[in-house]
Amino acid sequence: MDSDDPRQPLLGHRAGRSARRTLVKLCGLQSWRRRIPITVWLPNYKLEYLFRDLIAGITVGLTSIPQGIAYAMIAGLPAQVGLYSSIFPGLVYAIFSSCKDVTVGPTAILAALLAKYVAKSPDFAYLASMLTGFVILCLGVLQLGFLLDFISKPVISGFTTAAALQISAAQLKSLFRIAGASGDTFISAVINFITNIKTVQPWDTLLGFASIIVLLIMKRSHIKTSPTDNRWRVTVSNTWLYVIRARNALVVFVSLALAYILYRYGLTPFKLTGTIKGGLPRFGPPPFTTVVNNQTLSFGQMLGVFGAEGLAMPLVAILESIAIAKAFAGSNVVDSSQEMLAIGACNLVSSFAQSMPATGSFTRTALNHASGVITPAGSAFKACLVLLAVTLLAEAFYFIPRATLAGIIMVAMVSIIDLTIVKRLWTSSKSELCVWLLTVIVGCCVGLEYGIAAGAAVDAIRAAVSSARPHVHCEYFKINNYDCILMRLVGTLSYSSAEYVAKFVRSRALDTPTSRHVIIFDAALLRAIDFGVAENLTTAIVDLQKHEHTVFIWNLDPKLHGLFTDIHPDLNRTFVAGSSIESFIGLPSEQHSVNITT
Amino acid sequence: MDSDDPRQPLLGHRAGRSARRTLVKLCGLQSWRRRIPITVWLPNYKLEYLFRDLIAGITVGLTSIPQGIAYAMIAGLPAQVGLYSSIFPGLVYAIFSSCKDVTVGPTAILAALLAKYVAKSPDFAYLASMLTGFVILCLGVLQLGFLLDFISKPVISGFTTAAALQISAAQLKSLFRIAGASGDTFISAVINFITNIKTVQPWDTLLGFASIIVLLIMKRSHIKTSPTDNRWRVTVSNTWLYVIRARNALVVFVSLALAYILYRYGLTPFKLTGTIKGGLPRFGPPPFTTVVNNQTLSFGQMLGVFGAEGLAMPLVAILESIAIAKAFAGSNVVDSSQEMLAIGACNLVSSFAQSMPATGSFTRTALNHASGVITPAGSAFKACLVLLAVTLLAEAFYFIPRATLAGIIMVAMVSIIDLTIVKRLWTSSKSELCVWLLTVIVGCCVGLEYGIAAGAAVDAIRAAVSSARPHVHCEYFKINNYDCILMRLVGTLSYSSAEYVAKFVRSRALDTPTSRHVIIFDAALLRAIDFGVAENLTTAIVDLQKHEHTVFIWNLDPKLHGLFTDIHPDLNRTFVAGSSIESFIGLPSEQHSVNITT
Repeated sequence: MDSDDPRQPLLGHRAGRSARRTLVKLCGLQSWRRRIPITVWLPNYKLEYLFRDLIAGITVGLTSIPQGIAYAMIAGLPAQVGLYSSIFPGLVYAIFSSCKDVTVGPTAILAALLAKYVAKSPDFAYLASMLTGFVILCLGVLQLGFLLDFISKPVISGFTTAAALQISAAQLKSLFRIAGASGDTFISAVINFITNIKTVQPWDTLLGFASIIVLLIMKRSHIKTSPTDNRWRVTVSNTWLYVIRARNALVVFVSLALAYILYRYGLTPFKLTGTIKGGLPRFGPPPFTTVVNNQTLSFGQMLGVFGAEGLAMPLVAILESIAIAKAFAGSNVVDSSQEMLAIGACNLVSSFAQSMPATGSFTRTALNHASGVITPAGSAFKACLVLLAVTLLAEAFYFIPRATLAGIIMVAMVSIIDLTIVKRLWTSSKSELCVWLLTVIVGCCVGLEYGIAAGAAVDAIRAAVSSARPHVHCEYFKINNYDCILMRLVGTLSYSSAEYVAKFVRSRALDTPTSRHVIIFDAALLRAIDFGVAENLTTAIVDLQKHEHTVFIWNLDPKLHGLFTDIHPDLNRTFVAGSSIESFIGLPSEQHSVNITT
Repeated sequence: MDSDDPRQPLLGHRAGRSARRTLVKLCGLQSWRRRIPITVWLPNYKLEYLFRDLIAGITVGLTSIPQGIAYAMIAGLPAQVGLYSSIFPGLVYAIFSSCKDVTVGPTAILAALLAKYVAKSPDFAYLASMLTGFVILCLGVLQLGFLLDFISKPVISGFTTAAALQISAAQLKSLFRIAGASGDTFISAVINFITNIKTVQPWDTLLGFASIIVLLIMKRSHIKTSPTDNRWRVTVSNTWLYVIRARNALVVFVSLALAYILYRYGLTPFKLTGTIKGGLPRFGPPPFTTVVNNQTLSFGQMLGVFGAEGLAMPLVAILESIAIAKAFAGSNVVDSSQEMLAIGACNLVSSFAQSMPATGSFTRTALNHASGVITPAGSAFKACLVLLAVTLLAEAFYFIPRATLAGIIMVAMVSIIDLTIVKRLWTSSKSELCVWLLTVIVGCCVGLEYGIAAGAAVDAIRAAVSSARPHVHCEYFKINNYDCILMRLVGTLSYSSAEYVAKFVRSRALDTPTSRHVIIFDAALLRAIDFGVAENLTTAIVDLQKHEHTVFIWNLDPKLHGLFTDIHPDLNRTFVAGSSIESFIGLPSEQHSVNITT
């Protein structure tokens, strides 16, 4: 330990040294290069990487196109916005990313969170992108990533489940082409579906379900190969693997072709995506004022519309991205700060190019990984492919049936629902299962942001209750004819446990039949104790001594001695150290304990 | 433990038994008698108690009269309200009280909290009394007293200090008889004093300071006696003790007499209390509507005026009363629930008799204790004395100079400021000192309620941070030529520590020069672990095993086995039990550990 080291420099020197170290870190080329990882990987780029990065880029790009259009649809934005959000974040991420696998772009959950603002004006989407980027960048620069520790696994899982349910329910409208609004929450979407169920259109429904079934079958249809197979079979298997990976694009292409052919024959049985404005976006800062219901909102008023719930977007963006990065990092450690800088930069930059908030996408990251990407260059290739599509193919996208996109979204959503955590929490921690359920229910009924807030609040209450009722391990035994009670105080005894600890100690010592005990507090693993707890414990100890019990405080950290002796100087005589209880218990008790009479 | 007992009844039986026990408790005469303690002490009342209870009642009553008038003045209410608040709560408390010493009545802090509502309309005072009683009663009935555990000692002390400063500063106006408002906060009161310093009136100032000096001198002027003294000296000493205890009444009486004599000579140099409406209060429910600025406020709007800050009154009332009860209980245990029922009933009942919120008063309780009270009958005698005063002497109270009352309040306030806690926190816990300071500063500058809220919030953050960074005790040693690392996991590992614990374990195991370790997690004192922590720890352990380390989890509670094996079934093989490390470390490692290859 530092504090026991006689060579430890004085505090002034230490502070100076620490400041110098920070300065060196800030100015050093190496630490700047670590913050811009492309300067590390690009100079070492090899030609053999190119092929694999390109294949991965194309595969992911073919999924990014339909998903981009679909997620823009979820947010209620023009389809090209979803594509722009795959392009520009993808390019920026290739520069700042420290994780080769993660693919950045619009995600269904962020789109769902954005929808209620876009319902007022699409301008909110571009501003949301900038603000999201700004908040994430701030968190990254100020090293506030530890705040995410306070969102527990059950809350994240519950939130994801609620989001998947809400997004799927909102797709029922497109899948069945029913009338009415898609709804802000799971409940309202389901209610809308039920009230408008008579307006179901058979052809859209048929196409939607056909898309879902094809996607589900393709997802599971791997051709197994063994080393004894001939070359032809291996080639077929590998080709099929690429087909499977591009299944989203394929389903979209087939239904697009179908819709186009029927259109040429004068039939339009499906609701189509409609005109997509192709070409490059309008570059420029996001709008800082907007018009809602003929009223001009200033920047301050737009911020007011986002409110505190608006913070859900940057929060969810980081949670998604870091969770994904960790899932694919294997045994590499993920640099959360760098990831925040990268995602923040992506959103900040792309808000200048008509993009919606973007973050790491689970499905596309998994695809990227499976396609064998080697460097973040894959992300850049993907962006280029989407850029080509939006400039050259925008007119063809007119014919993409909405029911197919709804099918793609629903299949993607089912895959992110993870129910194994429910089974695990059921067997191991019912209270955490309640947190999960609360997050899901509030998320589904009130809104996704409120689900996170409710879950995090209940988690905080759980933690507060458990710190107010710390476990004091208690043992009863006899040494040298003394009746001993050993109580172990461990960890940090927080202020809220003051009443409980003192009451516990009294009850254990005074409720036993023997009238005189030796009570030993083992404080070897006690790291910190708040003032109120020390004060109440001292009162209890003095009380025990009045009842003629002998009290020892064993192996208390010398740093904590002062706290107790300040409250009651005589407690000094109860402090004992040593490796075993026998070492001090044999001695005459007067040497250690003190009987206080009033 | 119950769960290991083969005779343990089935769950259904247990629930039934517990319900029956609750029913018996609710219906049993004994438990009802415990809730109405007068049914216990009154039948055993002895004549010899009467004299001592009567003396105590008179002594406390003589202080209650000037303090009641003074505290009504702090709240901005007519003087008789302060007296009524000593009478009716005192009578009700005698019925429900389990602590003989505590004296209930208006207190300076509650009056200060009430002042801003009374500034709108005095009707708020009576409604506040009813609501305060209702909230406290609910907390008592619902056994929610543990909520008070979350207000730490430093916050209570900081709040008391801020309240004493604010109340003293607000008295500067009366002490110096300056112009302007007394101010809602310490800062505004001091600013008002400085801006109006030219309006200081010399006679009031002189009388005020004279009162303060006399009170301070009397407080310290005990006549010491020794067993060898003659009877005369002992009698003088005892009589003087009664005089000292009635010093507040005495000072008021002398200045009242002075003001009256000067008035008879045509001089009115002092600002006087003015007309006090004597006699009994108007009995009836508190007003549920009121008129503020010619606008009628409904009950809902009155509740709106109290808002969430209004909850500070019941909170402070309980905190004061329970803290006082504990301070004078000696080694008796205070029944917090009973105390809440008593204080709740006092306020609820007295709100029907034009009273302001009341709670245990520190100065008068100390006086009651020092006067040798034997039963809560003392409280009833005090109430009767004040009742006599308000019916017979109300007209005389006209001449009490305000500067004298201000002096009495300031002396009382100085005595409740306790600065020893600052010294103790300075040496033992700087972060708690910051909480204390924050509570004082916010309390003085923004408002007392906000001081408590700020302090409690920072305490909660401190606790959250410490539960996110639990201490893992680490030891390195060699057994049978194995390099061992022992890590002790203790207490409850809460969800927020998930990242930290896993990172800590990895860094300790992987950053050491030796390449292969035996890593032992001592979980004997681990009581609970949240799902996220278990999951991350499991991932870290599997990673350590990949790096060819051998991992043991030692003495893990069997209840927690399932949590780990659910996440990774192979972890089952790392669980070991036994009294010493040697018992399992000598065995071939394959028997316990597992090397997982992917």
